[in-house]
Amino acid sequence: MKTKRLPSGTQDKLFRRAEGVYTLEHQISNILKTRGFQRIETPTIEFAELFDDKPSDTLYRFFDNQGRLLVLRPDMTLPVGRVVSTTQVKLPLKLSYSGKVFRYHDDMKGLQNEMTQIGIEIMGFSSMKSEYEAIFSAYTVLQELNVPNFFIEMGHAKVLDAVINELPLDKKGKKQLNQAMLNRNISELRELTQHYPSEIGAFVSELPTLFGDIVSVVNRAKQLLPTNHEITMYLEELLFLSELFDETVQKRLRVDLGMVRTMDYYTGIMFAGYGEGIPDSFLNGGRYDELLAHFGVEKAYSVGWAMNLESIFDLLYKQKEKINKPKKMIHVEDLNQLKKMSALEKDVELSLFHSLEETREFAKKWDYEEVWYLQDSQLIKEVL
Amino acid sequence: MKTKRLPSGTQDKLFRRAEGVYTLEHQISNILKTRGFQRIETPTIEFAELFDDKPSDTLYRFFDNQGRLLVLRPDMTLPVGRVVSTTQVKLPLKLSYSGKVFRYHDDMKGLQNEMTQIGIEIMGFSSMKSEYEAIFSAYTVLQELNVPNFFIEMGHAKVLDAVINELPLDKKGKKQLNQAMLNRNISELRELTQHYPSEIGAFVSELPTLFGDIVSVVNRAKQLLPTNHEITMYLEELLFLSELFDETVQKRLRVDLGMVRTMDYYTGIMFAGYGEGIPDSFLNGGRYDELLAHFGVEKAYSVGWAMNLESIFDLLYKQKEKINKPKKMIHVEDLNQLKKMSALEKDVELSLFHSLEETREFAKKWDYEEVWYLQDSQLIKEVL
Repeated sequence: MKTKRLPSGTQDKLFRRAEGVYTLEHQISNILKTRGFQRIETPTIEFAELFDDKPSDTLYRFFDNQGRLLVLRPDMTLPVGRVVSTTQVKLPLKLSYSGKVFRYHDDMKGLQNEMTQIGIEIMGFSSMKSEYEAIFSAYTVLQELNVPNFFIEMGHAKVLDAVINELPLDKKGKKQLNQAMLNRNISELRELTQHYPSEIGAFVSELPTLFGDIVSVVNRAKQLLPTNHEITMYLEELLFLSELFDETVQKRLRVDLGMVRTMDYYTGIMFAGYGEGIPDSFLNGGRYDELLAHFGVEKAYSVGWAMNLESIFDLLYKQKEKINKPKKMIHVEDLNQLKKMSALEKDVELSLFHSLEETREFAKKWDYEEVWYLQDSQLIKEVL
Repeated sequence: MKTKRLPSGTQDKLFRRAEGVYTLEHQISNILKTRGFQRIETPTIEFAELFDDKPSDTLYRFFDNQGRLLVLRPDMTLPVGRVVSTTQVKLPLKLSYSGKVFRYHDDMKGLQNEMTQIGIEIMGFSSMKSEYEAIFSAYTVLQELNVPNFFIEMGHAKVLDAVINELPLDKKGKKQLNQAMLNRNISELRELTQHYPSEIGAFVSELPTLFGDIVSVVNRAKQLLPTNHEITMYLEELLFLSELFDETVQKRLRVDLGMVRTMDYYTGIMFAGYGEGIPDSFLNGGRYDELLAHFGVEKAYSVGWAMNLESIFDLLYKQKEKINKPKKMIHVEDLNQLKKMSALEKDVELSLFHSLEETREFAKKWDYEEVWYLQDSQLIKEVL
């Protein structure tokens, strides 16, 4: 007998959820098209070398018949980098994509191993308009989808880099810092700053609390930092960017100075989207100017983001249920009447049942509004 | 340096092709929704056992961390069968899906290993309306997409089954018959009928030529077959089905009595779609009543089809190039003007270039119609 089980971290989606996630993907894709993003699609399978900086136990890995190691892509940005660096496409470009990404987690964690992502990559524009467009396009998507109470939190990859350099932290210390930041563990940070005394100690130990309203957080951070310290430059960058947006957008913006990179290729401003009722960010993005250099071509100014569609579906449809489907069903008793079907309106669904009674019962159960049928060659439209 | 290569049989899609295939997928999905199909989505990864009847060298296979053998799905019908047989969903149901499927071919063959499929499964309706709806929905899709000169060829899985039983062929003979049918190799079939004499010898040796117009082919086949032979029943079934359609649809229908199963689970009427300029069928479907029984649940009347979106794209867009994109681009010189952007029409794309000159140059190159910019606080709309 065939297996009825599903691999760890995967799920079937039926009806409302399947339709909902698919519709979301298309709505977002259309918004991005309107903003001038051009679609790109890369294979689900890549050579493992492309993702050699990811821990191998988080990847689905396998061999082709020639013994070459393949993976299911865990991320779309590296494949886009591969395409841009190997084909004749000319930068600047604004690209968008959607599709599945795969990250291996064990059964126990209850995490999804296969996710639907949609995202953008803005490559080759040196202006800060890139960050503006990246954040504004994400904002527009969330706004047009009516995602309730979302906010976009901004951070800067170089803040923690500067901390690491200045303390200076070794590999272990670096890991400890990241972990303490993720857990907002103030006592651990105090320990770290005592162990590595520096002129930014006060800033570092308060770092887990430096999130929220941009102006107040930046002001507080400046008080904690020595004048003209490198980090103040990144604070100014965050402030400058946030002030490019109008008030409606600004209301949705926050800052988190202790934001930890979600992708190790981020080199500047980063951002993440959060909403009510889901613990993790459903949007992650940032600047990644060095990525193309990994492919041996000239580096290129780049900013991108990716959204997790399943999370956005959860945010949107916790309560609501509304899927458009046909409202009318037509029953034919004599199969030879099928010939007349093509002349009917397109939104009348053909009933595949044998009898009118079965059709009526099914239509009532599934909230159809009308059942149509032929009686003495006359079309009857029965309202349910 | 990162790899720039792509695994065998995979490809990147850019711009027109990426956008085209994606748009097709959505158009078809909408047509199916209008006809009352409900979306289902199953994971890309399945346990290998689910596909244990497929030759293992055609599958991408790998292990999870617990040593369980996984595959990338080569087909969507078995996963849908798994869902229907394991969940509480009640038949009858009309389901639709779209997504990637994977079949391993070696480099040498130049075949695609990763394909985008869209399809339907009609399950639990005992009426022949299922076959009608399956073929009519496929016809409607191809018609609404304006696929030029397509036709749908019908066959019957039990015709070759009956031949195999009657000769009777062993495993090797069966393989030889299938191969001879695929190659329309008349001399090989003659040999086969001489080696296995039977009362259907004349029919079998002419089988490779029994395709084309349904009425004439069925008539010719009847002349070759003994009266009331089992196979005539299947011929009548094909004839009866074809006559349910109106003339416009009938013009697109053909028959191929020697059609070889593309899926080993087919049990009755099968069909395939062909078009000008592509050698293989882009549509494959059929009845598969025994599939659910493999999951240990009651068998269910089932008919389904799947289309290969890349092939349909090739059929449609060999010459044509038309992708909708924004037609207007706005340039801001002073970043502080970005604040005013949200008040603009939504289909004006923000230029990310520093200068108006760069914006103008880019807009001309990519066929934009207008470039907008602010001059002395006034919005200038420059037609290119």
